Amino acid sequence: MKLIIAIVSNDDANKVQSELTKNGFSITKLATTGGFLMSGNTTLICGTQDEKVDKAISIIGEFSKKRTQMVPSTASYGVGMYTSFPVEVTVGGATIFVLDVERFEKL
Amino acid sequence: MKLIIAIVSNDDANKVQSELTKNGFSITKLATTGGFLMSGNTTLICGTQDEKVDKAISIIGEFSKKRTQMVPSTASYGVGMYTSFPVEVTVGGATIFVLDVERFEKL
Amino acid sequence: MKLIIAIVSNDDANKVQSELTKNGFSITKLATTGGFLMSGNTTLICGTQDEKVDKAISIIGEFSKKRTQMVPSTASYGVGMYTSFPVEVTVGGATIFVLDVERFEKL
Ligand code: NI
Ligand code: NI
Ligand code: NI
Repeated sequence: MKLIIAIVSNDDANKVQSELTKNGFSITKLATTGGFLMSGNTTLICGTQDEKVDKAISIIGEFSKKRTQMVPSTASYGVGMYTSFPVEVTVGGATIFVLDVERFEKL
Repeated sequence: MKLIIAIVSNDDANKVQSELTKNGFSITKLATTGGFLMSGNTTLICGTQDEKVDKAISIIGEFSKKRTQMVPSTASYGVGMYTSFPVEVTVGGATIFVLDVERFEKL
Repeated sequence: MKLIIAIVSNDDANKVQSELTKNGFSITKLATTGGFLMSGNTTLICGTQDEKVDKAISIIGEFSKKRTQMVPSTASYGVGMYTSFPVEVTVGGATIFVLDVERFEKL
């Protein structure tokens, strides 16, 4: 038995959770606040059999891929003079920890 | 030293937490959102000595037992015709992971 | 790779998080509710290389030190008679668990 702790961006959390659930994984979503990735993120915990860890990680990776996105930005180029232009930002990504579970009980 | 991660339903979380505390366990309650059990649930983390793990698990089990409950439900049996009847649902239950702690510090 | 789970008081959480971040650690802050320490507390999780665990723990300890604080208190010493006096309370402190990470992925 392993415990997977996955930190994904808030934007991807629901999709990752529902895909894992569809594939038979049991997921608990913890409320998380900032810090790891630029925007807000969510921590998912998932207990699973050793031989299903690869499958879970591949699902998490598939639905939380890092990708770039254009967002509007503004720069000043003189006193009171501004220009607006699009900036490319990276969103998504996942940080995954796999821990060994010594004992597992479902009561 | 072990770390117990217990996911219980929101309904049982306070009782489980107070019984563990009464028995000398230190509990931290994490805000959790859906997924594992049908209704909302709470994740409790509890660091404890190896020889007290059984005691903690038995307390968690005692105060988060799975039980059935009758809730009102409605079914339609024709166009615009409904009947209301009680349905048995299962509530409670706990999912428990025990992890080994390599190092523990109380500062 | 190790996973550090640190429970600190809400008052110290931001300072601990920003100092860890300044020192190159990646931190995720989980919303926590009561139980472990008297006032509200925050759970921080931090994945780090084995050889940096001591550094992380020393930073957490430095910025969540237990200290005493005077707070106003009131006692009654007769029917309708009250006196207000300062009481010394202990604030801060940290509880830290270090777990081994079997597998770590940054996707
Ligand atoms: Ni195992
Ligand atoms: Ni131990
Ligand atoms: Ni390691």
